[in-house]
Amino acid sequence: MTYCLAISLNKGVVLASDSRTNAGVDYVATYSKMTSFVFEGNRSLVLLTSGSLATSQAVINAINKDLDDPTAKFDISKGKYLHEVAEYIGSLSQKEQNRHAKAMENSKSSSESSFILGGQILGQKSGIFLIYPQGNFITASDETPYLQIGENKYGKPILDRFITRSTSLEDAARCAVVSLDSTIRSNISVGPPIELAIHSEGVIEKPYHSVLTSNSIMYKSIQKQWNEGLKRAFKRLPRFEWEKPVK
Amino acid sequence: MTYCLAISLNKGVVLASDSRTNAGVDYVATYSKMTSFVFEGNRSLVLLTSGSLATSQAVINAINKDLDDPTAKFDISKGKYLHEVAEYIGSLSQKEQNRHAKAMENSKSSSESSFILGGQILGQKSGIFLIYPQGNFITASDETPYLQIGENKYGKPILDRFITRSTSLEDAARCAVVSLDSTIRSNISVGPPIELAIHSEGVIEKPYHSVLTSNSIMYKSIQKQWNEGLKRAFKRLPRFEWEKPVK
Repeated sequence: MTYCLAISLNKGVVLASDSRTNAGVDYVATYSKMTSFVFEGNRSLVLLTSGSLATSQAVINAINKDLDDPTAKFDISKGKYLHEVAEYIGSLSQKEQNRHAKAMENSKSSSESSFILGGQILGQKSGIFLIYPQGNFITASDETPYLQIGENKYGKPILDRFITRSTSLEDAARCAVVSLDSTIRSNISVGPPIELAIHSEGVIEKPYHSVLTSNSIMYKSIQKQWNEGLKRAFKRLPRFEWEKPVK
Repeated sequence: MTYCLAISLNKGVVLASDSRTNAGVDYVATYSKMTSFVFEGNRSLVLLTSGSLATSQAVINAINKDLDDPTAKFDISKGKYLHEVAEYIGSLSQKEQNRHAKAMENSKSSSESSFILGGQILGQKSGIFLIYPQGNFITASDETPYLQIGENKYGKPILDRFITRSTSLEDAARCAVVSLDSTIRSNISVGPPIELAIHSEGVIEKPYHSVLTSNSIMYKSIQKQWNEGLKRAFKRLPRFEWEKPVK
């Protein structure tokens, strides 16, 4: 399994992903699920992947192949709008899945992948899209400024509490790390390192990118502070009538 | 959907449940999912239900019918061990499901229900059991002292952080309310009031029982304090290198 999320803010876009993949519980591995495509001054895009690793990698390969092929009808550097790029990725994903559809059906396996595309094209606002395995896609809204793929439930409450469009990039990034960390604690199919990308509105260049391993100071410090903060919050909760008041 | 949980502690057992049921999104209703069976000085049991409301109610009816029937082979007041009672509830559940199995299959519906049984029989330690729709069951362990049924993911991280066997009954009860409240915020199929039962080890009588409606002072106060505590914890998280330090 996987857990990736993206948050669309007034000041830009925050994206985060875990790095665990598994084919059954006895084949667990670490793979990055975040890929950047930067065309400086034109567009800065980040793609997050979840689901079949084979399909996810095949889609990334196809994106790069199209970029190298001057006869390709479309590639990730083209299109005026982000949703055109989302459409393109959806169609690549469908093509890759269809290629193996019969064999997958015979082995009762799934080659489905979901994607999150985030970033900005010059002259447009930044945005995020969730591309379903079927190739169709949705974007975020003012009411729900975030999108998630993979193991999304454990880390959702914290997003529902804190994230609005006006949240700062840094607060959203911290919230994303906490959301991922809560998921990692509760579900073994999601694991570190956590990758984090921060795209600032209007800055069409490589986004800030950080890899938080289990030993990284920033990650350890977030874990420690959050745990202590929760403990303090917990201690302050109201007492039952028969309990002594809080000191 | 539903979310119920039970926590097994050195000092007793805490049980909590939401009250929302739905048959599709256009038929949402409020039902208690917590039933107490108390035989003072002999046993105090609490049953939580999730899944098909028809099966859950049929099982409660069957329990009461057996209690009234002097010729019944077994009833909930019998058995020396809690696991015998769990076995009995599992078999009632299977019987009720089998009764409608063909009709349910024809309509592609499910009559599956899960149960949590918690409480204490005189002379035994208190305990909790999760009874699967198939009638088999598991109990908690020192490593995982809680059991959940229904929509269990949103509310799991907080349990993983705070609950051990040595947690006090009151802290576990607060944690259960926070776990339910987080789920209620993130999933519309789980809703108030929250029912809470606290059984103290060795006290074989009706457990403490509280119904926290959306307007109850205790519930509002837990929500408010927890939200404020989380905000404080969030504000204290470490800054990125380019940010000003926390005031």
